[in-house]
Amino acid sequence: MIHLIYYGEPDMKRTVIVGMGFGGLRAARALAGKGMEVVVVDRRNYHLFQPLLYQVASSSLEAESIAYPARGIVRDWKRVRFRMATVTGVDFAGKRLLLADGELRYDYLILAAGGATNFFGMKSMERHAFQLKGLDHAVRLRNHIVETFERASGEDDPVKRRALLTFVIVGGGPTGVEYAGALQELIRHEFSRDYPELDMGETRILLLEAKGALLPALPATLQHYTAQRLRGMGIEVLLDTQVHGAEADKVVLAGGDNIPTHTIVWSAGVQACPLAAVLGLPRAANGRIPVGPDLTVAGDDHVFVVGDMALVEQDGRPLPMVAPVAMQQGEYAARTIVRRERGREVAPFRYRDKGSMATIGRSTAVANAFGIRLSGFPAWIAWLALHLMYLVGFRNRLVVLLNWGYYYFFRAQQVRVITADEPCVPRAAGPEGPASA
Amino acid sequence: MIHLIYYGEPDMKRTVIVGMGFGGLRAARALAGKGMEVVVVDRRNYHLFQPLLYQVASSSLEAESIAYPARGIVRDWKRVRFRMATVTGVDFAGKRLLLADGELRYDYLILAAGGATNFFGMKSMERHAFQLKGLDHAVRLRNHIVETFERASGEDDPVKRRALLTFVIVGGGPTGVEYAGALQELIRHEFSRDYPELDMGETRILLLEAKGALLPALPATLQHYTAQRLRGMGIEVLLDTQVHGAEADKVVLAGGDNIPTHTIVWSAGVQACPLAAVLGLPRAANGRIPVGPDLTVAGDDHVFVVGDMALVEQDGRPLPMVAPVAMQQGEYAARTIVRRERGREVAPFRYRDKGSMATIGRSTAVANAFGIRLSGFPAWIAWLALHLMYLVGFRNRLVVLLNWGYYYFFRAQQVRVITADEPCVPRAAGPEGPASA
Repeated sequence: MIHLIYYGEPDMKRTVIVGMGFGGLRAARALAGKGMEVVVVDRRNYHLFQPLLYQVASSSLEAESIAYPARGIVRDWKRVRFRMATVTGVDFAGKRLLLADGELRYDYLILAAGGATNFFGMKSMERHAFQLKGLDHAVRLRNHIVETFERASGEDDPVKRRALLTFVIVGGGPTGVEYAGALQELIRHEFSRDYPELDMGETRILLLEAKGALLPALPATLQHYTAQRLRGMGIEVLLDTQVHGAEADKVVLAGGDNIPTHTIVWSAGVQACPLAAVLGLPRAANGRIPVGPDLTVAGDDHVFVVGDMALVEQDGRPLPMVAPVAMQQGEYAARTIVRRERGREVAPFRYRDKGSMATIGRSTAVANAFGIRLSGFPAWIAWLALHLMYLVGFRNRLVVLLNWGYYYFFRAQQVRVITADEPCVPRAAGPEGPASA
Repeated sequence: MIHLIYYGEPDMKRTVIVGMGFGGLRAARALAGKGMEVVVVDRRNYHLFQPLLYQVASSSLEAESIAYPARGIVRDWKRVRFRMATVTGVDFAGKRLLLADGELRYDYLILAAGGATNFFGMKSMERHAFQLKGLDHAVRLRNHIVETFERASGEDDPVKRRALLTFVIVGGGPTGVEYAGALQELIRHEFSRDYPELDMGETRILLLEAKGALLPALPATLQHYTAQRLRGMGIEVLLDTQVHGAEADKVVLAGGDNIPTHTIVWSAGVQACPLAAVLGLPRAANGRIPVGPDLTVAGDDHVFVVGDMALVEQDGRPLPMVAPVAMQQGEYAARTIVRRERGREVAPFRYRDKGSMATIGRSTAVANAFGIRLSGFPAWIAWLALHLMYLVGFRNRLVVLLNWGYYYFFRAQQVRVITADEPCVPRAAGPEGPASA
């Protein structure tokens, strides 16, 4: 049953934004109060602060503290509406966004559905590896890590126990580096005390990177610093190491070697959200949609693509799939719409790279911003300040700050709970099953 | 593959505690450092602060803030170990606790596995109603409530929309009362601003109670006060109202009347954890195991049952299935074991009722403790102080306090996120499915 969705402003032009990530959020904010109706559509009802997902997966933060309800954000913005829905396609000629349960007419459309993990067609990896793009991924990985330690604590066979205690992270970008460091700290500071029956010397964390260096966006000195620090923390950093596939109890390297493990975290690739594939638009590398200098698609200057979904080349290279690009593009698309409505020209989009950073562990990070290179504690302070600044919402910021402060001063990571569904007792366990007296 | 689990102290007597709820936790703490090995077994790896589950279900608290990792608690207690495992039975003659993946010998056994929802054999209710005993229940109910408002906001048919916006809570005990109040505040303070397209006058919350009064443990004046306050908040309190069954879109009353709804919360009954049914011990009303004056089972004074699983009569009436009873019984069982080991006598268990309380809404509650009856704001302060005092763990206490403080001063309930699994785009949506470029 398809129905048209009307809101209060039939005479007003309407911009529809698909996606409540960094790009969509910035676009919506920039369009608020500009004499236009704005509808943000997302299949989830929250904005996810993705850069901190790895902290949820390492028990440092509670899942909900990095998810902010979409309606709580837009309700303070003039004439901006939110609609939770699944997009099934776009009728570009009729200017209609097609939803699973209806449709929305638009005058301008901003596609900002973000990215997804790219397994590069490696089906065995897709089946066996964990990923870190959504809140559910992070919670699933956290549950799995704790469960693995629980299993290891009851495992007498040393070979099986070592396999359980081996954690392989594939991909040496920020997510891989940050998760490796956070996992090692979880093990050293918390699990070492939680599991007195286990010898933490049996645990291994391996960080595999296909290329010759970690953190490709940073200068070589910081890349070396990062590898050195991680190794100093006891993490095995293997560069120039490609993986070939995965099984339930091992990862297979390109050379044929096996690493017995029950935990593979895949952080080696991103692609455009598969939504890009159902729109009928041309796609390039990683499923991204090539756009013009004004971020609109070929032949339709009412349709913008921003963030991970968009392929924009600058100085001969595609812009990376990172939050700052999405934010600047979201704001640009909004500004362009406003200017066009007022009959003004717009300059082509240009990304201003303010630098990048990654945290390595408790009180140490690397940062390269505005031409300044920082490492160690100063970089960590910069990283902390930036992430807190960007976190949406006052309460979330406070909760995250509290968690971090507590963690920093007391070295306690407190989540560590397995939130999987569990019946009170398995029905197969006894002769009667649950009583209903 | 069954294997025996040995810990470090082969010559020491061992007490095994099944369940990390209020009873098991208190028993373990009381046994710590008393010259005995203690192993706590639970199918979950955390202690759940059940009294605040309703706040997770009403978006006031994050799920993990009321779950405290079991190993984080016991690691500071001398010779107390934790093991996450599913209990499949007990070999009473051989003094062995049987686990899904092994077994544990014991000298003393304390069964403290808690309670479960009792649907009294009403299968249709079990299928369609939400319950509030586990963390997953609370998260599922929270997700459902927010999802229901999202669905209602896209529903043009007023009859269907009203059914979506009707919430039926069955059972007028503390959980039912507290959830009704919290849900109404979520709707009035948050959803009214989140969903400008909805008329909140269309929402209905019904609290159905089979008996003639709410909160059976409290004196009549406070029962009346509670009903009056809830009604003042716009909640329809229906006393002497029995339900007959449920369907996906309605609840059926005993008289034959239907209430169209997509949300039924069942808080009308508890029973012993179904584990009680697989032990081969005699069971009485609500599946509880009758125990003697020293809380041991008939014919085996090395096996204690405490908390919701145990049936203990006092002054001619069974003790209620509430946390204070479990805590006092857990401590009693531990004390009894220590005294017996030292060859001393023990007096029969006697529950000291310190009173009970329930919160009705923001800054109002009812309490009856030590002979003092409180209602309104003073009762709410007492409720707040007591719950904070009991919350395990410093960080959790801070986070909860922060949430409450923020909520109290700024009237903001911030969780409101639907954490259900969602793929980036449904595979059935497009012609291609997810790209793997």
